[in-house]
Amino acid sequence: MEHFHYQHGELFAENIAVRSLVEQYGSPLYVYSAQAFKDNFQAIKQAFEGISPLICFSVKSCCNLSVLKLMVEQGAGLDVVSGGELYRALQAGVAAEKIVFAGVGKSRVDIRAAIDAGVFLFNAESEAELQRIDEIALAAGKRIKAAIRVNPDVEDEDTPEKTATGGRQTKFGIPLERAYPLFAAQRYRQIDVVGLHAHIGSPIPSAQSYLNAIEKLEQMVDKLAEQGSPIEFINLGGGYPATYGTESKAATPLPEMGQAICARLAGLRARGIRFLNEPGRSISANAGILLTTVEFMKQGWDHKIAIVDAGMNVLIRPTLYDAKHVVWPAQFGQFNGSWQALPHRDVEAGFEKVDVVGPICETGDYFALGRHLPTLAADEVLAIFSCGAYGMSMASQYNSHGRPAEVLVEGSTSRVIRQREDHADLVAHEIAALSVA
Amino acid sequence: MEHFHYQHGELFAENIAVRSLVEQYGSPLYVYSAQAFKDNFQAIKQAFEGISPLICFSVKSCCNLSVLKLMVEQGAGLDVVSGGELYRALQAGVAAEKIVFAGVGKSRVDIRAAIDAGVFLFNAESEAELQRIDEIALAAGKRIKAAIRVNPDVEDEDTPEKTATGGRQTKFGIPLERAYPLFAAQRYRQIDVVGLHAHIGSPIPSAQSYLNAIEKLEQMVDKLAEQGSPIEFINLGGGYPATYGTESKAATPLPEMGQAICARLAGLRARGIRFLNEPGRSISANAGILLTTVEFMKQGWDHKIAIVDAGMNVLIRPTLYDAKHVVWPAQFGQFNGSWQALPHRDVEAGFEKVDVVGPICETGDYFALGRHLPTLAADEVLAIFSCGAYGMSMASQYNSHGRPAEVLVEGSTSRVIRQREDHADLVAHEIAALSVA
Repeated sequence: MEHFHYQHGELFAENIAVRSLVEQYGSPLYVYSAQAFKDNFQAIKQAFEGISPLICFSVKSCCNLSVLKLMVEQGAGLDVVSGGELYRALQAGVAAEKIVFAGVGKSRVDIRAAIDAGVFLFNAESEAELQRIDEIALAAGKRIKAAIRVNPDVEDEDTPEKTATGGRQTKFGIPLERAYPLFAAQRYRQIDVVGLHAHIGSPIPSAQSYLNAIEKLEQMVDKLAEQGSPIEFINLGGGYPATYGTESKAATPLPEMGQAICARLAGLRARGIRFLNEPGRSISANAGILLTTVEFMKQGWDHKIAIVDAGMNVLIRPTLYDAKHVVWPAQFGQFNGSWQALPHRDVEAGFEKVDVVGPICETGDYFALGRHLPTLAADEVLAIFSCGAYGMSMASQYNSHGRPAEVLVEGSTSRVIRQREDHADLVAHEIAALSVA
Repeated sequence: MEHFHYQHGELFAENIAVRSLVEQYGSPLYVYSAQAFKDNFQAIKQAFEGISPLICFSVKSCCNLSVLKLMVEQGAGLDVVSGGELYRALQAGVAAEKIVFAGVGKSRVDIRAAIDAGVFLFNAESEAELQRIDEIALAAGKRIKAAIRVNPDVEDEDTPEKTATGGRQTKFGIPLERAYPLFAAQRYRQIDVVGLHAHIGSPIPSAQSYLNAIEKLEQMVDKLAEQGSPIEFINLGGGYPATYGTESKAATPLPEMGQAICARLAGLRARGIRFLNEPGRSISANAGILLTTVEFMKQGWDHKIAIVDAGMNVLIRPTLYDAKHVVWPAQFGQFNGSWQALPHRDVEAGFEKVDVVGPICETGDYFALGRHLPTLAADEVLAIFSCGAYGMSMASQYNSHGRPAEVLVEGSTSRVIRQREDHADLVAHEIAALSVA
């Protein structure tokens, strides 16, 4: 079931016409479907039921407290990468034993906070980090579990360079060969190094890249068993794809991908190893849209331009990653059906070529260049689809725009889960200094 | 005089060793030199004294209230591009008649606020915008002045694509030929269209690109005079370069650039036309540095990695624009002199090749890749130079890191001009919704 769908030409989020949300809450606006989050979580759960992993939702993809609470209520654990995310996770009410703490640059303060909270597992990214965790755990008088993130030197050719994290040239993980001694019993005073972690990037459209990484993990598990360091957990990372509707080639569908991965892991499972994964984008991306309103239509030298009220400050993915999102009017004739069935790729359908750009003073501030869209007009509401992941969590106040509100739709009800920022919010941390000067 | 300089190996901001600032205010930390802002403003003033322009500092480049106040005290006007920047400008105490309101996507609310405040000039970017301004001015009972931003179809080959704004394919301005009718008297009820605005991007390293744009403006002034629409103001935009210390070829020095531009404008000046410009980067970039601390040193497959506590959340320019900033330890042997004299380009000097990366979970999160630096160690403070422009103003909370503090140094004193954000700040707009659910 697609929770963003058109009925008689009106785009709905679940049972609410999104244009009414803009009227009520203003523009630009992030809108999430609670049911989509639930369905997407269940889809991951089903796809990986062969290995019954602890599914730790990746907080960085969509970090709103109410979203995290919703995920926790579904049974998810949480994958956090900073003290701030740990704080969010605890505020959202997750049990500490379902928190995994990842990230290459864990500060002393954040490590101590995670130890005090009693998180389930540290994903350690370097020898120096393990050393630091050990010292802090000793000072805290706590024993902790760690997985070592290995850098498997695996890449998927269809993963964007900036978000591919499995290659040997990246900053992530510890090279396979260097990792072995770190598992030795008694190497650390307070850490049980009992897990292997491999996360190779996002999105990873092909199951084969995972299978390649798993093959390397299997070899490690064998060698570690030989050296007397049995592995208890394997953390598979995340990176399962979402639907952007603009892909040049289809990703492996999630059920197939899950099945292939689970089949490949059957041997390890039979040896008693337990699994974790850390999906983010595959749960949140298609659970959110960004609504924005056309301020002006404009004629350039040779092209038409729609200037909208959201910009790279609100959604940076198009200019940062060259991400292609479907952009379409929230009111479209008498169209019925999922947003995925929109004729947005049909350049022959008599649509008009247009650049959809934001108000920010940069040429890189755009959502779509040279797209064929229905003829647009000022004050029209547009939807940018697949914005639930790495949308609001990356938003800034560049050009001194307050960040938009976030709204969660559940059936026929909606509520603000993050208030829109106003001018006073922009300067709240600066205003005191002004009067002192 | 260079206000960021080494004395016996210690980096100073004016008279304060920057490592003491990190001890006092924490890390990461933006540090600005008040004297550098003043000197850079005076340098612009001198370079353009031939045309005595109203110099409107570009708020988007560095929008901190205390910085704006400092600029206003120097006599600067302010160039704003949103209602939020207008609010900042007014808070900073600028006279409304020294505010220029630019930007392609001015909302009704923002236009009304600018009219009510009594700003000096609107830089209009489209026919539809002029129409909207006219309606709102009528409702407000105010008469206003506008300049039309023309798109001159001028590009500088050395300006990055994302910040080049003078080309015909961009969203900026009105194509030259289409602009003429908009100047006709009585075309608008409440607007006197008396200005021409051309801003061609940033940074523009060559005077010739400005001269090319000015040539087109001159032709327009002549044609407009013929059609009975005399021009009172020419807004030259900004885009004058700063020093990054990594440029592959030298930019035209500011005094030369100003002289060339002023000489070219002598004829227009003799006809009574007055001038504005809107420098941002050329004033703020070299007035600020970002201090960051090494969390971990790490050995990758084939390369060394320094993981620091600032990331693309704090400074996005390296990953977004492929911007190259000088990165160097705040303590460096017994070195004396300006940061610009650092041996950072000397790969033969026995330095170590290293990637300087942030804590964010993206491969694109880096400050320098494969740079030759002195051997680094954990807890060492690094300075990233030329970060006063488009640094903090583009910062986000991605991965739930609070944004850093900003500190202003004046001689031997320092003070916080923006407080560091803490965990509670991250969720301040979300927490109420959580308890309601």
